[in-house]
Amino acid sequence: MADLTLYSARGTCALATHIALIEAQADFELVLLDFAQQAQRDARYLALNPKGRVPALRTPHGVLTETVALLAYVAQAFPQAGLAPRDPFAFAQLQAFNAYLASTMHVSHAHRPRAVRWADDEAAQRAMQAKVPQNMRDSCAFIEANHLQGDWVMKEGFSVADGYLFTMTGWLAGDGVDMAEFPRIAAHHARMLGRASVQQAQAQLDAAELVAHV
Amino acid sequence: MADLTLYSARGTCALATHIALIEAQADFELVLLDFAQQAQRDARYLALNPKGRVPALRTPHGVLTETVALLAYVAQAFPQAGLAPRDPFAFAQLQAFNAYLASTMHVSHAHRPRAVRWADDEAAQRAMQAKVPQNMRDSCAFIEANHLQGDWVMKEGFSVADGYLFTMTGWLAGDGVDMAEFPRIAAHHARMLGRASVQQAQAQLDAAELVAHV
Repeated sequence: MADLTLYSARGTCALATHIALIEAQADFELVLLDFAQQAQRDARYLALNPKGRVPALRTPHGVLTETVALLAYVAQAFPQAGLAPRDPFAFAQLQAFNAYLASTMHVSHAHRPRAVRWADDEAAQRAMQAKVPQNMRDSCAFIEANHLQGDWVMKEGFSVADGYLFTMTGWLAGDGVDMAEFPRIAAHHARMLGRASVQQAQAQLDAAELVAHV
Repeated sequence: MADLTLYSARGTCALATHIALIEAQADFELVLLDFAQQAQRDARYLALNPKGRVPALRTPHGVLTETVALLAYVAQAFPQAGLAPRDPFAFAQLQAFNAYLASTMHVSHAHRPRAVRWADDEAAQRAMQAKVPQNMRDSCAFIEANHLQGDWVMKEGFSVADGYLFTMTGWLAGDGVDMAEFPRIAAHHARMLGRASVQQAQAQLDAAELVAHV
């Protein structure tokens, strides 16, 4: 049994932690939950992760959730992989970027597939969905203007933030945004598609069997 | 001039960083933006913080944003204050708690005062606002069941998470939730109201003049 188990699901933000674990050369097992069968609401999974969402990472010390926390944890647990700057201020900037993706950009996206979280009324859900392209575009414009000044999110080099941004930008087409409007973001996405860790994550996702019960 | 300047506004999540800075005994200046005059959209402020929001912390190394990043930065910049556990797993748990507040609980709250972010239609905005009490109650139930097993959020003791939770629970009454439904949360809120740092933050907020231009 591996030291670490990542609970993931296809098409979710768990991909960011998945890429980080591969970049870190961590020994981990991937468990792919079948959301169509509500595997994330199964009692045994809820005992592991009461939030009933992914990602969750089982570690020898306990279960961790929340992408922002998981990415920092992976970077700090595998320092030799160099997935986060060591300078405290640069590390805080990395955390700020990841926190922006989690609490602004991912939230904007979620108003399309998960509008039901924030209003019961179907017309209201459609109104939220209609605004998703504009909000995602606003986040792209912010990132295009303030990050990606070189090949990667952080000027210090590749970091856990790159797999997270790649996860978000993988949602843009479905959210009605043409990535070509944002040349730096489009180039970053293409660069990540060519990266071994991203290809390996995709292969693992393709090969894994969906589970209804953990 | 102080080493640090916190850009804040009354009634916002910037209070969490404000409390953390006082707990850390940091030398900082408080600048209180006048949101009624759109101070957060003023060109000079946008040059500091292109997000046009608070909190932002000017440091000798540059400007930092995002509460999750700021709280970790303050804890790490002032280690003698003991505002975060040093054990890497416990630190990750703290980050996961703060990330949950940022990307779930704060977002749930924001659908009342800031519904306009996620739909243009006024009926849709009212439908979102109607669901805020339920979503805030769900977050309270999660926190009540999974945290606050002692006096503070983390079993390791007081941390930057406590001022952040206090900030969120200060919004509950306005969000239509009676804190008394959640005895641990109510006791935590009362405990924080008696804490010197919280009283000092409130006094500083009361005394500060609102600024329209930074």
